[in-house]
Amino acid sequence: MKQEKAENLGIPSFSSPALKRHSQVATPERWLMRQLLRSLGDPPIRVRFWDGAEMEPCPGEARTAVVIHDRLALWRLISHPMLHFGDDYSLGRLDVEGDLVEFLDTVFRHRPRLRSSSPTRRQLMERLQRVRRNTLRGSRENIHHHYDIGNAFYRLWLDHEMQYTCAYFPDPDMTLEAAQRAKLDHVCRKLQLKPGETVVEAGCGWGGLARHMARYYGVRVKAYNISTEQVAYARERAAQEGLADRVEYVLDDYRTIAGEYDAFVSVGMLEHVGAEQYHVLGGVIDRALKPGGRGLIHSIGQNQAQPMSAWAERRIFPGAYPPTLREMMMIFEPYDLSVLDVENLRLHYARTLEHWLQRYEASEPEVEQMFDAHFVRAWRLYLASSIASFTSGSLQLFQVLFARPQHNGLPWSRAHLYRDHNHKE
Amino acid sequence: MKQEKAENLGIPSFSSPALKRHSQVATPERWLMRQLLRSLGDPPIRVRFWDGAEMEPCPGEARTAVVIHDRLALWRLISHPMLHFGDDYSLGRLDVEGDLVEFLDTVFRHRPRLRSSSPTRRQLMERLQRVRRNTLRGSRENIHHHYDIGNAFYRLWLDHEMQYTCAYFPDPDMTLEAAQRAKLDHVCRKLQLKPGETVVEAGCGWGGLARHMARYYGVRVKAYNISTEQVAYARERAAQEGLADRVEYVLDDYRTIAGEYDAFVSVGMLEHVGAEQYHVLGGVIDRALKPGGRGLIHSIGQNQAQPMSAWAERRIFPGAYPPTLREMMMIFEPYDLSVLDVENLRLHYARTLEHWLQRYEASEPEVEQMFDAHFVRAWRLYLASSIASFTSGSLQLFQVLFARPQHNGLPWSRAHLYRDHNHKE
Repeated sequence: MKQEKAENLGIPSFSSPALKRHSQVATPERWLMRQLLRSLGDPPIRVRFWDGAEMEPCPGEARTAVVIHDRLALWRLISHPMLHFGDDYSLGRLDVEGDLVEFLDTVFRHRPRLRSSSPTRRQLMERLQRVRRNTLRGSRENIHHHYDIGNAFYRLWLDHEMQYTCAYFPDPDMTLEAAQRAKLDHVCRKLQLKPGETVVEAGCGWGGLARHMARYYGVRVKAYNISTEQVAYARERAAQEGLADRVEYVLDDYRTIAGEYDAFVSVGMLEHVGAEQYHVLGGVIDRALKPGGRGLIHSIGQNQAQPMSAWAERRIFPGAYPPTLREMMMIFEPYDLSVLDVENLRLHYARTLEHWLQRYEASEPEVEQMFDAHFVRAWRLYLASSIASFTSGSLQLFQVLFARPQHNGLPWSRAHLYRDHNHKE
Repeated sequence: MKQEKAENLGIPSFSSPALKRHSQVATPERWLMRQLLRSLGDPPIRVRFWDGAEMEPCPGEARTAVVIHDRLALWRLISHPMLHFGDDYSLGRLDVEGDLVEFLDTVFRHRPRLRSSSPTRRQLMERLQRVRRNTLRGSRENIHHHYDIGNAFYRLWLDHEMQYTCAYFPDPDMTLEAAQRAKLDHVCRKLQLKPGETVVEAGCGWGGLARHMARYYGVRVKAYNISTEQVAYARERAAQEGLADRVEYVLDDYRTIAGEYDAFVSVGMLEHVGAEQYHVLGGVIDRALKPGGRGLIHSIGQNQAQPMSAWAERRIFPGAYPPTLREMMMIFEPYDLSVLDVENLRLHYARTLEHWLQRYEASEPEVEQMFDAHFVRAWRLYLASSIASFTSGSLQLFQVLFARPQHNGLPWSRAHLYRDHNHKE
């Protein structure tokens, strides 16, 4: 693989090192790698170096291995493992033997957990978030980086409604298509949509939820998104399907939402909002909701406030941050909104991603034609590490349902979500 | 009513005022009452004074009225409405005409809501919490005040398992007994209890949940409580019912919990913990949970951080505080616990309280014999205002289910909570 082809990912090129690259691994290098493994909680994996030497923190237990192809990759890994593992895997200077997801799950599972809630650490985290510019313009650039790389690319491995968010599998063996439809229904049922009502959607992706709500629940939808490619696609589909009179796609930022609606919904946008903007988002919701209004936010989250991995943040999702539930509450609490229901669907996201990864891997030749081999490996790693993040509990998926505090026309229990919906498909 | 009989409630006695009590209401007094009504958001209620004069912010709309029997009550109401409404209603210096719950719901519903999340306000709230001493000893005194006033009193109006927490009504028309049983099952199912497992319960009341878990789910339970009367009752019932070998009631503070368990459960204790102790409670849970452990906390909560009404805090529940969900997260986040499910059951608590109030009112002669007429009125007001707090959205009821982050033996969806449980009883 030629490293100069990595421009699709923004990995900086680097010239050959002064280090002799193919001599034997030196004792200090082994010692440093040992320290790295220790800091990772000594996961049961094997490390193989370019000279064939091996290292194994838990002898006999490893089922997967990382292979370091040259000295530069070793030094880069030691210096900034979170960033350079991803970059050097993408460039082919590192490989994983055995199942990639299993390797990553093993590493994530053994990583020592934070045990602290000191206000200092919390403030530090909050400050780190602030560094990322989710201003109106910053958001546009961040979103363009990820979502405007081409609808044709996403079409290779998403379902036919182009849902790029966690599906819902009432039956774990159902197809991705069925599970994505089930997710749309799950969201609509939680919102208790009634024909003739109005809905505003913040961050509508390729518009599948908006079309589904209009088609099957008889509501009128105004859906906002700042990705030009997605909005163009969404408008075209709505026109083709005769829904253009009931679904309006607006190419603009959620902060410009105007008007009053019966329901607010946002699926998979909050990750891009940035915690410093939650108060603003809450204000948008508060302005947009009628007195009997209710809303749902579906977002990746985490148990403890930590920045995303440096690699994912730089190469895949600039400006993204998965909030804790405590942080999500900063949307609702200032505006006296009642949280009615929180559901954690993290294992459903792992299952969704397994489907995506399978389809993605089957499409790797096409992806390589569209981009290059580095890109193929980068996205394979991103999908695999996302699966491992959800199976190891490093990431969560929260659906949060909320309403005005005095809205008593609530469903009496959640039983309505589970009536006649447990059938196999 | 003689005011010197109010010692059961701790209402200070006061001597007759210098004010001439039975002359006509003066213009400045009417003006001050007008300001009070305005600060309450001009609820559609009527005010009647001792001289027969009336005042009504929304003429023609009022269905209920407050009657102020003398000048002292008026001045006290104006000076500290939150405290003195309760005290003077208890003493019979104030009355409500029309339905008491409706009157309170109307007032709560119109009360201007806070619209602020400024860090200063949040810090101030957090400091206010800290004033209340929920030290080991402080907690004991606070709990004694409310729960040790006599099992015979609570037996008059609770269900036969003595559940003094929100019931769960899969069918809103079911009996209180059936709904309390349904609550116990709802909690046990959320926890996915399996025979042979061990459970630790923090704040077990009269022990009904512990006995239910042991009897129907085959688990061994260690249940903590610092109310001597409740623990004595719980032990006696367990012995009578042949459960003493599987349920151990410990007369001690939750902070002394030792050992490791498959599940942690706490129903209706968090209100007495105090937000400044949530980090300590989280540490207790973290120490107590096995790797595959999960837990549930059931607590009254609120949308925005505000102290309880001064009257309820002084006369009924010293040291109590209903947290926001954001504050509850301070239990889980430091210890990397995953929140799996949050359910808001506020309307179920309103229904539960309606049953209690009905039974309570039917037992008022017995209550007056046990205590006095002031006590009868104080507890009637407390039950009625609790109903109104839940119907008006001033209070919430959160059930929060959580687990260790890597516990993947989770139910795949929540459908299991709703299988065959929608029958009428």
